[in-house]
Amino acid sequence: MQSLSFPASMTAKSSLIDPDGGELVELIVPESEIELKKKESEAMPRVKLTKIDLEWVHVISEGWASPLKGFMREDEYLQSLHFNSLRLKDGTLVNMSLPIVLAIDDGTKEQIGVSKNVALVSPQGDIIGSLRSVEIYKHNKEERIARTWGTTSPGLPYVDEHITPSGNWLIGGDLEVFQPVKYNDGLDHYRLSPKQLRKEFDNRQADAVFAFQLRNPVHNGHALLMNDTRKRLLEMGYKNPILLLHPLGGFTKADDVPLDVRMEQHSKVLEDGVLDPETTIVSIFPSPMHYAGPTEVQWHAKARINAGANFYIVGRDPAGMGHPTEKRDLYDPDHGKKVLSMAPGLEKLNILPFRVAAYDTVEKKMAFFDPTRAKEFLFISGTKMRTYARTGESPPDGFMCPSGWNVLVKYYESLQESDESSKKQTVVSA
Amino acid sequence: MQSLSFPASMTAKSSLIDPDGGELVELIVPESEIELKKKESEAMPRVKLTKIDLEWVHVISEGWASPLKGFMREDEYLQSLHFNSLRLKDGTLVNMSLPIVLAIDDGTKEQIGVSKNVALVSPQGDIIGSLRSVEIYKHNKEERIARTWGTTSPGLPYVDEHITPSGNWLIGGDLEVFQPVKYNDGLDHYRLSPKQLRKEFDNRQADAVFAFQLRNPVHNGHALLMNDTRKRLLEMGYKNPILLLHPLGGFTKADDVPLDVRMEQHSKVLEDGVLDPETTIVSIFPSPMHYAGPTEVQWHAKARINAGANFYIVGRDPAGMGHPTEKRDLYDPDHGKKVLSMAPGLEKLNILPFRVAAYDTVEKKMAFFDPTRAKEFLFISGTKMRTYARTGESPPDGFMCPSGWNVLVKYYESLQESDESSKKQTVVSA
Repeated sequence: MQSLSFPASMTAKSSLIDPDGGELVELIVPESEIELKKKESEAMPRVKLTKIDLEWVHVISEGWASPLKGFMREDEYLQSLHFNSLRLKDGTLVNMSLPIVLAIDDGTKEQIGVSKNVALVSPQGDIIGSLRSVEIYKHNKEERIARTWGTTSPGLPYVDEHITPSGNWLIGGDLEVFQPVKYNDGLDHYRLSPKQLRKEFDNRQADAVFAFQLRNPVHNGHALLMNDTRKRLLEMGYKNPILLLHPLGGFTKADDVPLDVRMEQHSKVLEDGVLDPETTIVSIFPSPMHYAGPTEVQWHAKARINAGANFYIVGRDPAGMGHPTEKRDLYDPDHGKKVLSMAPGLEKLNILPFRVAAYDTVEKKMAFFDPTRAKEFLFISGTKMRTYARTGESPPDGFMCPSGWNVLVKYYESLQESDESSKKQTVVSA
Repeated sequence: MQSLSFPASMTAKSSLIDPDGGELVELIVPESEIELKKKESEAMPRVKLTKIDLEWVHVISEGWASPLKGFMREDEYLQSLHFNSLRLKDGTLVNMSLPIVLAIDDGTKEQIGVSKNVALVSPQGDIIGSLRSVEIYKHNKEERIARTWGTTSPGLPYVDEHITPSGNWLIGGDLEVFQPVKYNDGLDHYRLSPKQLRKEFDNRQADAVFAFQLRNPVHNGHALLMNDTRKRLLEMGYKNPILLLHPLGGFTKADDVPLDVRMEQHSKVLEDGVLDPETTIVSIFPSPMHYAGPTEVQWHAKARINAGANFYIVGRDPAGMGHPTEKRDLYDPDHGKKVLSMAPGLEKLNILPFRVAAYDTVEKKMAFFDPTRAKEFLFISGTKMRTYARTGESPPDGFMCPSGWNVLVKYYESLQESDESSKKQTVVSA
């Protein structure tokens, strides 16, 4: 963990922190070459992408995984799997904790044969780019899962959704996409690329950027933490610390709150002034979620380096979940921040450990937990919060701004309605 | 992988390669302090060691795992598990791919309570040393196994023997032992410590040391490889390359050839002149075997750095085995050498990939495989070799020196006799 003893004053600069590898990777074909490249790709063997594959294309093409220039070849895959890092040609290490790979099945491998390049086809059927100078190697799913999650238990969401049904081969190569990846879901304006974020930080003349990764609604405890972090950075001498509120926008498990609902909730939190819009940027992090605890939190932090954040807030049990088959947390809740603080390639990032906030039943607000009067604090987990909203029960006053809370209540009501309506339909069709 | 372009002439020096951390760890209490330390330890809570725990005490106390000074505390354990390396205070990385940990059960943890130091008790019941400033943390066996082996399949020999039956806690701390660990099995004279090996290399005025790790009998293909390596080093300009023939002496799986038989076989190979005693040191590497493929081969290489070897020969599928429940190799046979060539902390070691040797049926000897006349080569795996010896069938002429082969035949005959005699006993007692 880095100390916070920074120079008392810093001038704004185009980059508060260098992207991994020194230069931000961008893999979008220049306008002038698109027609030619499209024509070329028509003649290539095709690889059909799943929705999650496309999210990775998005991630790689915008440079979140810099210096990675495409889906991993075997050398990169092995380093990621065994060392959670990649060695660059100059000998330096960059963090790379999750294998970012593209699986293909036997039939596709056969069709590719000895071709050097392949076209990438979106789930909608469009060729969106290509992978060049490809390398095909074995996809040992068991080993990949064991080394990434530390378990091979059935019930891991990303594994069940994406790895188990995938092919027995991985294909790596250099990525090119014809257009920035868009989803046309009304949220694309929130999807700023690392380059756009860096520009935005410059525009705001940020002299510190602190990133907050989340995949849950923002309650007042989160807000307290973020506002407190800003205060601490100001006390340290920074003049204009900017918060990057950075919800994860890719694949999440079925019982997580969907992205559109979360974005609406986050808007309310800013409208209500719980967070200050002047010093906050809300943007979507396009990565899919692995729920891989200490391994994944490194990816979450590393990607934010590339986006220009030089401070990263890490919580208790980041990217953790319950064990799929045993009654315990899958990961030791402290391992995430410990691993993050020791991870190769993350030395330049300032890790800010989460201070525990809970509901203070005396003050009737979210406050930092005070162990000397532990009994007066109420812990409201994400699961508990979702249960409140689902059952229509109100959380204690001051837990979340009312307009934000209403977004959740409405979402869970709509779930129940669709649930009841599907039950009715079942009765009718029976 | 390092290139082999070394200066054409080097003078002998006390150290051809620095131990990890710069200084060789030795944790044996000086003679003058033994009585005091023994007395102190009498008053400490006791931790009973298994046979394998004691092998690790041996390994750590002699500095094979330098700069590790005891069983791992949690920070070291997590770095080993996630990064296969440890970051030192000066920022450099040393390789550390296997968790070197000591498990205790709930009862022992309770007995230790808040004590800072514990006494270590050998399987024979003697206090052999202590662990100081201990830290106790959770032993998540599933995660440890998954991240070390890349599988949680039942049937992994080290797991079944050592991890599954072990306690739910790990205890780390600084190790001290009263005496060098001895086994009194007639083989202790083969067990040279890293310090002793380094001294021996100096005595012989070695200007290069190449280590060969094995846990099987030496056949003429191995010998060809080792002799060829020496030839190549001489061609590179080294004047006196010394071979460290370094069989693993700790825990091995039940169907491996036992250490005493292997050592007798190795002696015959040197007596027969298949390997040159003048330029070969035969010594025992005291580590237990994990059969953890790419993860373990790093440990095998790293430990030899500490022993003073600056060249390491790596084979096909090092430390690999068949998958315990599926009909395939547990690891991709190429991954070991690939991972080794990229492993953090092993940059200073010269990795020499194994050239494949097979039985040339025309020349009637072991020779480097020539793919242009593939049909004339016969591959004799370790398993096949053991089958020959077990069934009393002779391998092709020139596969192994006859005196060495006889050692194996006698061993397997003795197995059959004891097998038959136990069958008879079963009949009698029935």
